[in-house]
Amino acid sequence: MTSTLALNLDRIRAAHERVRAYIHRTPVLTSSRFDDASGAKLFFKCENFQKIGAFKARGATNAVFVLDDASAKRGAVTHSSGNHGTALARAAKLRKIPAHIVMPKNSAKVKVRAVEGYGANIVFSEATQEAREAACASLMAQTGATLIHPFENEDVMAGQGTAAIELLEDADVDLVMCPIGGGGLLCGTAVAAKSMQPKIKVIAVEPENADDAAKSFRAGKRIVTKKNFTIADGLRTNVGERNFPIIQRYVDDVVTVSEDAIVSAMRRIWETMKIVIEPSAAVPYAVILEDKIDIVGKRVGIILTGGNVDLDALPWLRHESEISCA
Amino acid sequence: MTSTLALNLDRIRAAHERVRAYIHRTPVLTSSRFDDASGAKLFFKCENFQKIGAFKARGATNAVFVLDDASAKRGAVTHSSGNHGTALARAAKLRKIPAHIVMPKNSAKVKVRAVEGYGANIVFSEATQEAREAACASLMAQTGATLIHPFENEDVMAGQGTAAIELLEDADVDLVMCPIGGGGLLCGTAVAAKSMQPKIKVIAVEPENADDAAKSFRAGKRIVTKKNFTIADGLRTNVGERNFPIIQRYVDDVVTVSEDAIVSAMRRIWETMKIVIEPSAAVPYAVILEDKIDIVGKRVGIILTGGNVDLDALPWLRHESEISCA
Repeated sequence: MTSTLALNLDRIRAAHERVRAYIHRTPVLTSSRFDDASGAKLFFKCENFQKIGAFKARGATNAVFVLDDASAKRGAVTHSSGNHGTALARAAKLRKIPAHIVMPKNSAKVKVRAVEGYGANIVFSEATQEAREAACASLMAQTGATLIHPFENEDVMAGQGTAAIELLEDADVDLVMCPIGGGGLLCGTAVAAKSMQPKIKVIAVEPENADDAAKSFRAGKRIVTKKNFTIADGLRTNVGERNFPIIQRYVDDVVTVSEDAIVSAMRRIWETMKIVIEPSAAVPYAVILEDKIDIVGKRVGIILTGGNVDLDALPWLRHESEISCA
Repeated sequence: MTSTLALNLDRIRAAHERVRAYIHRTPVLTSSRFDDASGAKLFFKCENFQKIGAFKARGATNAVFVLDDASAKRGAVTHSSGNHGTALARAAKLRKIPAHIVMPKNSAKVKVRAVEGYGANIVFSEATQEAREAACASLMAQTGATLIHPFENEDVMAGQGTAAIELLEDADVDLVMCPIGGGGLLCGTAVAAKSMQPKIKVIAVEPENADDAAKSFRAGKRIVTKKNFTIADGLRTNVGERNFPIIQRYVDDVVTVSEDAIVSAMRRIWETMKIVIEPSAAVPYAVILEDKIDIVGKRVGIILTGGNVDLDALPWLRHESEISCA
């Protein structure tokens, strides 16, 4: 099993070779307006333009294509109501193997349709973690399919880390900022960046309302928290058990941002850069708006993680519609 | 006066050399999803990523930098409530000359702030065409500034045509689609495309609710129409007197699209391509949604004209908020 090997740069580079033909090399965009406002030089790695609209295409594709033929034939299984499910369904279709995606009954229809569009078998479960894991276990027992966890899987982490390789090939940076949910992207990013350029600082960012990673990082041990609501729906997860030690070793700091700053950051990126990003992707730029770290004069890489957002429910319109309809 | 010379490819190439240092070479994006849906290969020239958020930066910059030093010192003047005013203010600032922008009293505050941000002198007038032209004439008499009309100016047209040069350098296309309002972009695009590749078809597109160019093209003479409301605010103008003969000579057809198709096209481009475009920019893709021309098997260039949109008033949310607040 490759998934027991440690995460390192060789493994991320191998992942890059493996997935290159199936993903976009996304552009790195800059904004003179944002540079003027921040006093830094910002490089945005646009994974919102990635296949399926998020970086998750990288990790899922690597994890599916690294399977040996016998395992692959039995298929892949995961539980996800979000981008990882779609990404795994797509990767399985590309390899022409079965995919089983466990989704909560209350999943958004648009997400169900996206997974269906790639021909995956959808199994609906109750929304609790226990119910989802039980459904996965049952599918694995029935089919022999391999579990591809959204983030507690080194092949997934290695795949996510390929975005950082491309970012560092395209931009010479002092600092990389990356959101943290379960920690798959952060682990891949931190290992890639620190291994390629040990002097690069890696800063993880999460919402104040989902600050388990910040608390864990300060405490030196993994702390699971109950979460308050955060608009950054991709970051509501607790950091993974296999991810936390990697974060302790490779990440320089974990900082948190307010919900208001996330919404402002999202809106400013849409208005100024003319690109659509999802709330979770706005979290690193929120750090700059809240002036949480010193970036003046620095070259800062920011991973814009995805662009899958409900255009009928934009966060800056919620408050207004509450007022106008009250 | 250079502005009396005919519009031709040499002039557009000269404009390109002149403005190159002051504008972005915008990317040409593709979408495998849109290609699959349309049966064509689509190339989107992303002028929403241009300086000031629209192609207008090209024409205004060319028209300002082509002025001789004595004229330039006296400044530039125009009337515009939209992107051309911002573009002219920016170009004048770059050349360090005065700019006077006549804006209707009811202009959106965000547009006023954008012009102010470039240090231009704003003169407010009544919203009628007569009042705006009188205010321009008065400013010209007072200051000796040169009028730089938004579209009835060959240097502006030549500047706008530089987007087509870049598009054709980056993509080999059979057909180019371009929105038509006053006709500045269309004239530059058509002359550039037909001169570079005579076999390329050039199709102009306008809203059914502002179809003066289509009517004029069929009648063989310029017809000024009263407009119904169109969401495509950049295309509410009648085609210019100096633009129409160029359109007759270089454009293959003018087609119209419904308001519903414009809104759908705008939304699909946001959702699928993850980019922010303004309603006017969605008009060519609306042609594809309404199946108005045969593009199957063809390579189609589309100019996405701009991305300046009010994020508090998205067209697909209007109807819904009317219902929910009724």
